[in-house]
Amino acid sequence: MTQAAAIKKPQTATLDALYALIQEDLKRVDALILSRVKTEIPLIHQIASHIIASGGKRIRPALTLISSQLCGYHGQRQIPLAAAVEFIHTATLLHDDVVDESKVRRGLATANEIFGNKASILVGDFLLSQAFQFMVGDGSLKVLKILSDAAAVISKGEVMQLMTEGQPETTIENYLQVISSKTAVLFAAACELGAVIADQENAANNLREFGIYIGIAFQLIDDALDYAADQAKLGKTVGDDFREGKITLPVILAYNAGDQQEKAFWQRTLGERMQEADDLEEAQFLMQHHDTIGQTVAMAERYCRKAAQCLSAFSSSPARDAMLDIADFCASRAY
Amino acid sequence: MTQAAAIKKPQTATLDALYALIQEDLKRVDALILSRVKTEIPLIHQIASHIIASGGKRIRPALTLISSQLCGYHGQRQIPLAAAVEFIHTATLLHDDVVDESKVRRGLATANEIFGNKASILVGDFLLSQAFQFMVGDGSLKVLKILSDAAAVISKGEVMQLMTEGQPETTIENYLQVISSKTAVLFAAACELGAVIADQENAANNLREFGIYIGIAFQLIDDALDYAADQAKLGKTVGDDFREGKITLPVILAYNAGDQQEKAFWQRTLGERMQEADDLEEAQFLMQHHDTIGQTVAMAERYCRKAAQCLSAFSSSPARDAMLDIADFCASRAY
Repeated sequence: MTQAAAIKKPQTATLDALYALIQEDLKRVDALILSRVKTEIPLIHQIASHIIASGGKRIRPALTLISSQLCGYHGQRQIPLAAAVEFIHTATLLHDDVVDESKVRRGLATANEIFGNKASILVGDFLLSQAFQFMVGDGSLKVLKILSDAAAVISKGEVMQLMTEGQPETTIENYLQVISSKTAVLFAAACELGAVIADQENAANNLREFGIYIGIAFQLIDDALDYAADQAKLGKTVGDDFREGKITLPVILAYNAGDQQEKAFWQRTLGERMQEADDLEEAQFLMQHHDTIGQTVAMAERYCRKAAQCLSAFSSSPARDAMLDIADFCASRAY
Repeated sequence: MTQAAAIKKPQTATLDALYALIQEDLKRVDALILSRVKTEIPLIHQIASHIIASGGKRIRPALTLISSQLCGYHGQRQIPLAAAVEFIHTATLLHDDVVDESKVRRGLATANEIFGNKASILVGDFLLSQAFQFMVGDGSLKVLKILSDAAAVISKGEVMQLMTEGQPETTIENYLQVISSKTAVLFAAACELGAVIADQENAANNLREFGIYIGIAFQLIDDALDYAADQAKLGKTVGDDFREGKITLPVILAYNAGDQQEKAFWQRTLGERMQEADDLEEAQFLMQHHDTIGQTVAMAERYCRKAAQCLSAFSSSPARDAMLDIADFCASRAY
């Protein structure tokens, strides 16, 4: 992958310290998740296990767990709430993969590929309903509001993204609104929950903002990797976004910087979805030429620095260090 | 339609008295729904308006409105809760139509047919999230529990139904569990809400049971109509269930009553989905021969009588009469 080599490679952050801090909690979250998907209906169990057990990093539930530690919380509410966050995320993944007609995720065949679109849609609905049951079980209206608002914004973001499909003239502002909504808002909610259950109102705002910034960074890198990743390492098909006509920052920057002929290339391949064999390679060449992957990674790094600033109000602690690691990770993962 | 003529036609119940009682409330529910789908995202507005405005009878929100009247409630909480019920229903319809690959609903092209599967899945998710926002806005954990439990059971029911697809040997018990879950539970929740906001604990159980029974009756008739309806009047394609291999009571009864040759017919057409031009007509003939549409309608009528008994604890009132009309309607509509 020449593109992968072209990315300035920051030192990859490690999440080892984070996982050491939340190890026990994360085990309990996993056990709770598993107990909920082990219904009397085998298909739910199969699909949910397939996607949940397929080696995700549990970043979102980890954020709830570590945020609650950062805020000095010592109860048990973080467990079902972290599970709720993961269920909302997993439901979104299942529906996304149907919408995107994805065939591979994290190196494995997607659920829609194995079990069919129907089952993926319905089990996604089931997981979302389980998330709400966890929230209702928690019993706090504040928590319910945070997560139901997040679910509403996520679904709006997904629709907005669908509407930008095939439009390389989409503005950067519009793109940032899409990724803030579809991705960053759940990171933000996951972080905010830790403060809310610890009754730390002031911390809640800082942590929410932290979550937004790392969520944006996370998605920016995701979108860069779709053109530049080492497929074997990433476990996702390079060029998916291109084939789907999805408009991401590397494309927008290349379109804006391109001459008439290049603009026509992007309109043909993404707007009209008339793609030929070498077009992905040509797209990668244009991105390299205009350094749009580099610019995307640089923007992710800026968001991560903003995220780190949100933690300056907290005194130094292992939990704070672990959250700074997450911020670094979000701008450096997987390549 | 010879089949349609073959059904014993009960006197069609009218819902005029019901609508007269809830007219003002229903207008406010519609206005609230409309205000929520008029987002800054045109696609959400288009799809939601398409499905919500396409002439449904608003039976489910009507149940919440009339139940709250029956229980002597005089506040305003029934409005957003009825809207939440309708949103849950509408979200389910959108996802159902994608899952079933339906082309026509209520005489109009389905949203997935016009706007595509992607948009239908995502807008369905949006509507579900709006339902939860209404529930959170209401602020009662009891209400939240009723509706989030309902959403969970509905999604389980949908998955269970998917698992019976193509299996005419499905038991009647299994079928009843599917339709109780996917359909009747929302009817039950809609009714129960009216009692809960009126703080009538005892009434809640009766109304919940009433809802379950009329919901089962409603779905039984729906499943009968799919083989026996006057397509122009029903506004739905006759034979959809057959083409999809969906297993409903008219099929189960015909399969159970059939000889080896007939069983082989059902296995070929629904199990293996190897269907030829005249097969739907043959299926209708076998149902007529074994009177399975008649038996299905008769079962619906029995459930409606059970429903009516649930209202015997309430003293006579226009609201109670209107609910009895709904029960009649559920066993007699549309043909």
